[in-house]
Amino acid sequence: MALAIGVDIGGTKVAAGVVDTSGQVLRRARADTPERSVRPQVVEDTIVGVVTELIESCAEPIVAIGIGAAGFVAADRATIVFSPHLSWRNEPLRDRLSDRIGQPIFIDNDANAAMWAEAKYGAVRGETHAMMITLGTGIGGGILMGGEVIRGLFGIAGEFGHMQVVPGGHRCECGNRGCWEQYASGNALVREARGLVAANSPLARDLYERVAGDPARLTGPLVTEVAQAGDRTAIELLTEVGTWLGIGIANLAAAFDPGAFVIGGGVSAAGELLLDPARQAFRKQLTGRGFRPEARIVRAELGNEAGLIGAADLARESVAG
Amino acid sequence: MALAIGVDIGGTKVAAGVVDTSGQVLRRARADTPERSVRPQVVEDTIVGVVTELIESCAEPIVAIGIGAAGFVAADRATIVFSPHLSWRNEPLRDRLSDRIGQPIFIDNDANAAMWAEAKYGAVRGETHAMMITLGTGIGGGILMGGEVIRGLFGIAGEFGHMQVVPGGHRCECGNRGCWEQYASGNALVREARGLVAANSPLARDLYERVAGDPARLTGPLVTEVAQAGDRTAIELLTEVGTWLGIGIANLAAAFDPGAFVIGGGVSAAGELLLDPARQAFRKQLTGRGFRPEARIVRAELGNEAGLIGAADLARESVAG
Repeated sequence: MALAIGVDIGGTKVAAGVVDTSGQVLRRARADTPERSVRPQVVEDTIVGVVTELIESCAEPIVAIGIGAAGFVAADRATIVFSPHLSWRNEPLRDRLSDRIGQPIFIDNDANAAMWAEAKYGAVRGETHAMMITLGTGIGGGILMGGEVIRGLFGIAGEFGHMQVVPGGHRCECGNRGCWEQYASGNALVREARGLVAANSPLARDLYERVAGDPARLTGPLVTEVAQAGDRTAIELLTEVGTWLGIGIANLAAAFDPGAFVIGGGVSAAGELLLDPARQAFRKQLTGRGFRPEARIVRAELGNEAGLIGAADLARESVAG
Repeated sequence: MALAIGVDIGGTKVAAGVVDTSGQVLRRARADTPERSVRPQVVEDTIVGVVTELIESCAEPIVAIGIGAAGFVAADRATIVFSPHLSWRNEPLRDRLSDRIGQPIFIDNDANAAMWAEAKYGAVRGETHAMMITLGTGIGGGILMGGEVIRGLFGIAGEFGHMQVVPGGHRCECGNRGCWEQYASGNALVREARGLVAANSPLARDLYERVAGDPARLTGPLVTEVAQAGDRTAIELLTEVGTWLGIGIANLAAAFDPGAFVIGGGVSAAGELLLDPARQAFRKQLTGRGFRPEARIVRAELGNEAGLIGAADLARESVAG
């Protein structure tokens, strides 16, 4: 059966699962992600905890263990250079975990892992040239070219969210201004919605009522819910995020020329309210349109589990040689 | 010796050469590029002409013939989908030429060929992850990842010049607004210089005098010459182009994470007047700066011949299997 364990280390949850060769998750384990302020050791303990729980629950042997983590994974695939959610700085995660777990560990960026899963089992099954865009608080990115994950020389390719799309635009956590993820992400959606509610805009009546006038209570899923119920302003907010998504995708298509873009992450739950404007903006903006084949833009299929499924499968492939 | 012929089809010249395995150009042939309005057959005649001239001038056998062309080369590497300088539309160039020349022909985008040459024989010898940016009238792009040229699913990756950097910015020939090549290219340099001369700006006195007040006589090389002579306004114009170059490179570094960027094309003759501001902007703009290794930005070494050297060498490698 060649079962593998995948672990996805997100901002709030560490999600792990036993994954078979058809991409099915047979068993699951979860834990809260430790706070950013704690020592790296605590995060390790959490990972070791969920992995050990799964190994012990499994009658069959586990052939490989893969970790998907947000952040910069070094080219040596052993070290986490930097992670936005955690206290890791040049953390030798692979060796620390394999020492404690007693098995080889495989590490990758979470969006790379999700890309791999969607191309092997999900929305772009069989596609050789595809790109993953995960819209959460920011943007995560994964690149598949010729069937291979492209990681760059230093291991940190795919940081699409920090390509500048608006000179002098909104300040980003990365320190720059105008980064794409300030315009196409859950944070962007919430920032705009909160602005309207805080200003008590007449256009934001539905949103205002849903949070009793308290902008801090607005979340991405709530905006999506209000949009799906037909509120025009919430729909406009998603359209705006979708339009920026499409513009950025046209930029990526000019550079990478893939066959498909897979849109995942929390914001993708908005479905066509997000993807339809993204496709329209993409078609309007793609250079050479009319003279070239156009990439598909599709919603991810594997949802929250793409990262752990992909991490497990990449680990399995790396063990198989 | 395994000699190969490379042909670079530029906007004004068709340059061809016999290239040995050390990247040296042993013999050369040139012809004017036919006008865009003529039939594809005329362009073919020109290519066949320079290639035949070289074959006949060469005592040793030619093992491979490579063509580098500006434009979209399809993934089948047989068809030119679209070329900005020529009348080709879905032109089956490979087969037409091999029928007439009687040898296998290899086709690639000119910037891919230049990238290959610079990585094998030029400014980034030995680099496995590098990107070529040629600054001419527009921007050409080539991508090398893991030692392989990345061409995308449809063959037309690397069109960096048409990534949008300014929403609603300058109109581009591609039909969009705000494309990078409207800010970082020879055309951008000339547009800005002409604007100052046309307005008879007091800042543009040196430029004005050099063209006797006729903006149409301003060219990129002239602006560079005036800058190199110390004119502050011409230096500022190159600084502005260099700054935009650095901003775009930071975007590409976020996405591709290469070890080096090679800057070629006519504008690169400005040397440090262009590259120094590009490096400064890149360092200011690179996401994750301080937490990651940084790519080098270097000037191309092979000049005008990079395209033909690379086309010859790619052809030779493809014949060698």
